[in-house]
Amino acid sequence: DVPTPTIFTEMDTLQREGDELEWKESARWVKFEEKVEEGGERWSKPHVSTLSLHSLFELRTCIQTGTVLLDLEGYSLPQIVDDIIERQIEEGMISPDLRDKINFVLLRKHRHQTKKPIHRSLADMGKSGSSCSEYSFTFYQGSSCHAQSRSMNDIADAPSPDQLRNKFMKKIPRDAEASNVLVGEVDFLNKPFVAFVRLAQATTLGGLTEVPVPTRFLFILLGPQGKAKSYNEIGRAIATLMVDDLFSDVAYKARDREDLIAGIDEFLDEVIVLPPGEWDPKIRIEPPKKVPSAEKRSQFIPNCGGLSEDEEMPVQHELGEELAFTGRFCGGLYLDIKRKLPWLLSDFYEGFHIQSISAVLFIYLGCITNAITFGGLLGDATDNYQGVMESFLGTALAGTVFCLFGGQPLIILSSTGPILIFEKLLFEFSKNNGIDYMELRLWIGIHSCLQCFILVASDASYIIKYMTRFTEEGFSSLISFIFISDAIKKMVGSFKYYPINTDFKPDYVTTFKCECLDIFLFFTHFLHMSTIVQSMWMFSFYCATLNVTALDWSQLSKKECLKYGGSLVGNSCKYVPDLALVSFILFFGTYSMTVSLKKFKFSRYFPTKLRKLISDFSIFMSIMTFVGLDMLLGLKTPKLIVPTEFKPTRPGRGWLVMPFGKNPWWVYVASFVPALLVTILIFMDQQISAVIVNRKENKLKKGCGYHLDLFWVGVLMAACSFLGLPWYVAATVISIAHIDSLKMESESSAPGEQPQFLGVREQRVTGILVFVLTGVSIFLAPVLKFIPMPVLYGVFLYMGVASLSGIQFWDRIKLFMMPSKHQPDFSFLRHVPLRRVHLFTLIQIMCLAVLWVLKSTFLAIIFPVMILGLMVIRKMMDWVFSQHDLAWLDDLLPEKEKKKKDEDKKKGKEKDKDKDKEKKKSKAEYSDEEVDLPV
Amino acid sequence: DVPTPTIFTEMDTLQREGDELEWKESARWVKFEEKVEEGGERWSKPHVSTLSLHSLFELRTCIQTGTVLLDLEGYSLPQIVDDIIERQIEEGMISPDLRDKINFVLLRKHRHQTKKPIHRSLADMGKSGSSCSEYSFTFYQGSSCHAQSRSMNDIADAPSPDQLRNKFMKKIPRDAEASNVLVGEVDFLNKPFVAFVRLAQATTLGGLTEVPVPTRFLFILLGPQGKAKSYNEIGRAIATLMVDDLFSDVAYKARDREDLIAGIDEFLDEVIVLPPGEWDPKIRIEPPKKVPSAEKRSQFIPNCGGLSEDEEMPVQHELGEELAFTGRFCGGLYLDIKRKLPWLLSDFYEGFHIQSISAVLFIYLGCITNAITFGGLLGDATDNYQGVMESFLGTALAGTVFCLFGGQPLIILSSTGPILIFEKLLFEFSKNNGIDYMELRLWIGIHSCLQCFILVASDASYIIKYMTRFTEEGFSSLISFIFISDAIKKMVGSFKYYPINTDFKPDYVTTFKCECLDIFLFFTHFLHMSTIVQSMWMFSFYCATLNVTALDWSQLSKKECLKYGGSLVGNSCKYVPDLALVSFILFFGTYSMTVSLKKFKFSRYFPTKLRKLISDFSIFMSIMTFVGLDMLLGLKTPKLIVPTEFKPTRPGRGWLVMPFGKNPWWVYVASFVPALLVTILIFMDQQISAVIVNRKENKLKKGCGYHLDLFWVGVLMAACSFLGLPWYVAATVISIAHIDSLKMESESSAPGEQPQFLGVREQRVTGILVFVLTGVSIFLAPVLKFIPMPVLYGVFLYMGVASLSGIQFWDRIKLFMMPSKHQPDFSFLRHVPLRRVHLFTLIQIMCLAVLWVLKSTFLAIIFPVMILGLMVIRKMMDWVFSQHDLAWLDDLLPEKEKKKKDEDKKKGKEKDKDKDKEKKKSKAEYSDEEVDLPV
Repeated sequence: DVPTPTIFTEMDTLQREGDELEWKESARWVKFEEKVEEGGERWSKPHVSTLSLHSLFELRTCIQTGTVLLDLEGYSLPQIVDDIIERQIEEGMISPDLRDKINFVLLRKHRHQTKKPIHRSLADMGKSGSSCSEYSFTFYQGSSCHAQSRSMNDIADAPSPDQLRNKFMKKIPRDAEASNVLVGEVDFLNKPFVAFVRLAQATTLGGLTEVPVPTRFLFILLGPQGKAKSYNEIGRAIATLMVDDLFSDVAYKARDREDLIAGIDEFLDEVIVLPPGEWDPKIRIEPPKKVPSAEKRSQFIPNCGGLSEDEEMPVQHELGEELAFTGRFCGGLYLDIKRKLPWLLSDFYEGFHIQSISAVLFIYLGCITNAITFGGLLGDATDNYQGVMESFLGTALAGTVFCLFGGQPLIILSSTGPILIFEKLLFEFSKNNGIDYMELRLWIGIHSCLQCFILVASDASYIIKYMTRFTEEGFSSLISFIFISDAIKKMVGSFKYYPINTDFKPDYVTTFKCECLDIFLFFTHFLHMSTIVQSMWMFSFYCATLNVTALDWSQLSKKECLKYGGSLVGNSCKYVPDLALVSFILFFGTYSMTVSLKKFKFSRYFPTKLRKLISDFSIFMSIMTFVGLDMLLGLKTPKLIVPTEFKPTRPGRGWLVMPFGKNPWWVYVASFVPALLVTILIFMDQQISAVIVNRKENKLKKGCGYHLDLFWVGVLMAACSFLGLPWYVAATVISIAHIDSLKMESESSAPGEQPQFLGVREQRVTGILVFVLTGVSIFLAPVLKFIPMPVLYGVFLYMGVASLSGIQFWDRIKLFMMPSKHQPDFSFLRHVPLRRVHLFTLIQIMCLAVLWVLKSTFLAIIFPVMILGLMVIRKMMDWVFSQHDLAWLDDLLPEKEKKKKDEDKKKGKEKDKDKDKEKKKSKAEYSDEEVDLPV
Repeated sequence: DVPTPTIFTEMDTLQREGDELEWKESARWVKFEEKVEEGGERWSKPHVSTLSLHSLFELRTCIQTGTVLLDLEGYSLPQIVDDIIERQIEEGMISPDLRDKINFVLLRKHRHQTKKPIHRSLADMGKSGSSCSEYSFTFYQGSSCHAQSRSMNDIADAPSPDQLRNKFMKKIPRDAEASNVLVGEVDFLNKPFVAFVRLAQATTLGGLTEVPVPTRFLFILLGPQGKAKSYNEIGRAIATLMVDDLFSDVAYKARDREDLIAGIDEFLDEVIVLPPGEWDPKIRIEPPKKVPSAEKRSQFIPNCGGLSEDEEMPVQHELGEELAFTGRFCGGLYLDIKRKLPWLLSDFYEGFHIQSISAVLFIYLGCITNAITFGGLLGDATDNYQGVMESFLGTALAGTVFCLFGGQPLIILSSTGPILIFEKLLFEFSKNNGIDYMELRLWIGIHSCLQCFILVASDASYIIKYMTRFTEEGFSSLISFIFISDAIKKMVGSFKYYPINTDFKPDYVTTFKCECLDIFLFFTHFLHMSTIVQSMWMFSFYCATLNVTALDWSQLSKKECLKYGGSLVGNSCKYVPDLALVSFILFFGTYSMTVSLKKFKFSRYFPTKLRKLISDFSIFMSIMTFVGLDMLLGLKTPKLIVPTEFKPTRPGRGWLVMPFGKNPWWVYVASFVPALLVTILIFMDQQISAVIVNRKENKLKKGCGYHLDLFWVGVLMAACSFLGLPWYVAATVISIAHIDSLKMESESSAPGEQPQFLGVREQRVTGILVFVLTGVSIFLAPVLKFIPMPVLYGVFLYMGVASLSGIQFWDRIKLFMMPSKHQPDFSFLRHVPLRRVHLFTLIQIMCLAVLWVLKSTFLAIIFPVMILGLMVIRKMMDWVFSQHDLAWLDDLLPEKEKKKKDEDKKKGKEKDKDKDKEKKKSKAEYSDEEVDLPV
């Protein structure tokens, strides 16, 4: 069963141009129909061919009564036409005297509608004038307003330059063969002349087809005059049949006329019928997002209502073999390495793509903003033991190592909130108890690293399996909300940092000032200036004083003034003009420009490639635009400032922390306990982010490595502790942004086919570049200092909002505000009553609200652990919701089928204990999954 | 030929609930199909019924072989069922022992899917728990999670409360009759039991139907087990057929089985077929915007390819009888009055609608902003002879009179640019030549008024007929561009008016000040302060001076300082903080919020009515929001200031201008010449705006009155001249905004049907209210003073942009940026080659560019006259473009058919000289036009 080639169909109709007859291309099909707009001299948009039932039945009759030549040896059109006519005469269907006339008609020139480059058609506009309007239409070779034509006489095997030049070729698969449909009315026939020909070999028949694709099928319909429209419809019907996957199979394999007719009947059985009163046949139907594959269609039993919905349950929640419990020491880690190793080379060369540049720029900016923010906060929390410098170095080190060796290099490591709080508490504890912070921290890091190794060795990541969509989406939305609220908080903060003077009256500008006064003067000033008399006295005194010291004070800046004990007097002292508002404009502008540019991909303007480029670089372009605007305005907005010197933030600490000497010995042991908390924290944070990144929706092909990831996070824990750098763990939102910026879509092949999401550019290059760039940011400071912070907050807001989209939880929240008749056709809404959906969502919202409140207290430290609480709540929901509802809204917990699976496995093991074969099986399962994705 | 009632179809399927059998509603049709989502316990969205060809053929067989009872006398379901079974037994189709079983099954309870109020289902969520999930489903009466059910035994004529309570009733036309489809599988039959019943009278059969609609048709299909899906499909097929306009006609009129079968065959002939490989049958097709009417469908000859496009030419450009040349003295005016008089009463009572409130607020704000802007400019231009006060009064007077008596009360009168320029030139001329401006102006007004009367009396508005889409759209886009550019110019102006201090450093706030110094001090200050020594000397001097005069100077405001000869010294004097940026935020915010709220109508959130309300009040809500924001910030943004006292702006001029006494006698005569210019200017401006307002697309029903409009404009010219108020003429953009805010849409009747644009709320109330409000704005000043000007500029920007949308010219400009495959399916693109379209657009753009340039020179005064130039260019385009292309892109000029029409008219006159009949004929033509609108 060799797969049959794809078929390209061209339909030409016989037309009279002046005195000459010619075949003019009127439509073509790769998968969908494209019609030549008569007046517009252009191709229509690809659309679904809407046929009339009548034409299908007429076609059936045509095949029944006409000539069917299967596997004809044909090498040129004249010979083929001769053979057809001969057969018809033999069978007594036409009289021999028609031979020449039919021959003449069938060998007329073919004129194709070829796409012309736009610059040419623009240049044509002036000169062509009205000479080639529809009314005064004369055909001349090479006319500037006509498409190219070719004479039928040059039957060359080699395709003509016109054919080769046709750009449409790239839309046709390489193995394609052509099927040519020729229909027309002539005056010499009194009954239709019909022929269906299949050639033994696909042959290029000169200029018959617009593209250099060899012809395999030929359908000819010539008929008496007056029924041109009907012939046209029959031609469209056979053309549509020829591009149908199942019928083309039939056409290739048919042994006789009856097979073809059976094929048509099969097609008719499957056909979808629209009632004439509910649909306007003039509407061209846009190609659907997805069409059923030929395999699925052939499974249908048409009699049993193939039109009813799929009643099957949603695909089972399955995290793949990555999380299987091996039961062997380091079994998971071993499998992870074994799984990832073969991809190592491709992990590098697949990174070289234009899209990577935009991804690197985007994620880099996110990372350094994060590094600066967390660095600043850590510096405050630890009295500069760890500051911005350490944050940069640590990010660069940890990120590079993880992206080089980690199991899932798409994950971006970063400082996270819980770690920050832990460090804060730890520092306070050591300070209060006279323990050396850095040494204690080192020991916690070492313990934690060892604990991670134990978790790795025992395949403990296995428990992530119990995390369903409920937990996963809850966690990621919470993180997104935190991102959004942080971005907005920072923005609002700038209104507090740069207060606006709302009392300012432009005309009274003279009364607004801020002066630096000596503290003594300040008091006298205020105490005595109240009455005129006193003020007169004061003034002379004031002047006298000024005479001595004024020159010093008035030249001082605000900070200096306060430093030297002066007082700021005046009604504009506590206000800063413009900066808050400009910050807001930059923040909001960056955000909304990014959103609009992202959406620009779906607009109608500009060619697809340009739009894709704009969409890919949307964040970069918005940042550039608003950095430009900021430079243009020239205001002193807060800028991104990175450290420029390579030295620890706190003077007096070195780059290496020594493990012994500063703390008593029991601290080394006791640090096991806080290390346990850190380990749980890191384990949960890391693995949940990993699960979100490894989501099935992302269609990752290279597999992941939970155990390997955790191993490296442990190693980095220890390394960072020795170097006195912050600890790092997977950052959900930035990792999602990383994935989003690396998504691939198919270049749609057939015109009208929707581009399919193919997966993510899985490689290590972007990650490594991001972190190397972060490391050398110290040298990039002169460039980075132009970037205003509000622009970066805008990027953060965008990241938070973007990572919310595509989350089912978020879709369900939106349902609350929609009347049920306007709700989108989600599959779970078809199967679960709305009130159950709402109840599920409400529970989820309440959980998140509780977590949000806890997060704002000191409990934030155990925040990732609370995810375990979410998993418990999910377990309890088994009592409230039926398994059916949960299967649609969430995933089922694995226990339910554990037994069955275990049994299956036992059987499997008995039969075949060979590991390799088992692996192959699981791989096959994996690729199966990809196909059966629930959308 | 009485029209047959609309049919509502309900399909019930036989289901086993626990031990009991019952009929459960599974789908319903008003025009489109709504399905009960099994799991979701909800109605699906209305969609086009996609049928399988197989089911249609099976249905045909069913009707052929089953029982067909036409005009059965039926009063209750048991009796009808009895009759059917009796007939089947008579015909030997079933054995008599099945009678009881079939009877039992057919009289089971019917359970309907009724829509529950949302608050109830929310309340249910908690208590219902998992008890009514799909797995543990037991039926109990009045269950909170089930729809209501009714026993079949209470066969009441009066509808039950459940039926009456059903809100779905309002979606069903009043005259509707029901058709009930019952399908199911039973275990006691071995071949299908089929019956098609038409009752002699429509009868309410108890709880058979979910709504209290009497049943006329009944289709029953019971069959052996195992083919439920197939029965379902057959049920859907007959249900779809029953709601088909043509088939339902057949069903009502059928005399026998053959008629029904012929009806099915007819349906099959018209059916639209989608190939299975190009369409997924699972996709529910949204109802189209428009379906072909039954009349059009019956005209189709299916054999000749009913699927091909309409090849006819677009509907002819026709401005209606309003612009016909009567050839009689005041003939047009007489017809105008005659046409408008019958609507006078409805012009008032039709104005009372919630939509009017939003329209009045929107247009009112537009009008007063315009009045203030033009008032200010006029004041500058005429040395306050006409100022803001006159502008307000004049707008109120002219607007009110025009809306009360004008031919097209939707037109809003306003000052326009050309008039402003004319007044400016006139004032300069009079000043330079020692002529009294107000008296000269009065005479020009009188002459112009008389000239208008001559134009009215001679039906001169007739020439507007030669204005095609080219001219009309050119003019209106130009005006829109001017609006947009003015709004942006004003916005940019505020950055000049409130310059931002880009050198400001927050820390050096102490060095920024602005002081008012005595002019003498200022100089010494600058000349001598350069060296320290001198400064020491200066300082004592300075202090001494200050001692005497400082208290005066430092307390002065900027204006006062300059007034009293002081100098402003300091680096913050020429800057104003925040105001420019806040203005920008207010401007842009108002604009974008209005745009988003307008779009909100098409979102999925909230019920349709609320969304419509939000969309209608979008401008008002945006203004309120940003006025609120402005108040919250409390900054001194520029506010709307209306005069509060009723007196002429220029002291010394009275409210009445006397015609004689100040100028020599020849001025009275010579003013005829400038009056001529004013008249042409007013005529063009007024009538083009009127044509744009009266566009066919607006579906105005009450006709218009070009002559009547011009008459009143003339009268107002004279009146305003006597009162010394500005002259008024129709304002295009505000008039379009007025129309847009009064658009009506049908409350869609059948579920899924698109609401149709019905027309505009044509009345005089909104216009009158707007202008009365403008008149009393003097008293509204305390409220209006809170509105910042930038908000109003934002509204102007929105008005300009909104009036561009829906203009074909604008659509064609956008085509330049779209690759041809992404271009929308405009009908002109199907018929005219793209390069011709582009050429046409380019010519139009060039014309507008030339006009734009001219507008910026003193030639602006003859700006409306230049529209005549556009008409000439349009005439010349007849040589460049074929009539075919022009018919699609523009309209044909009337000459082409003038001859034919004239001949027609002559014939008509010969036959029938009665005026009234002629009028009736033209009215019929008019209403015909409405139907044949090209969309």
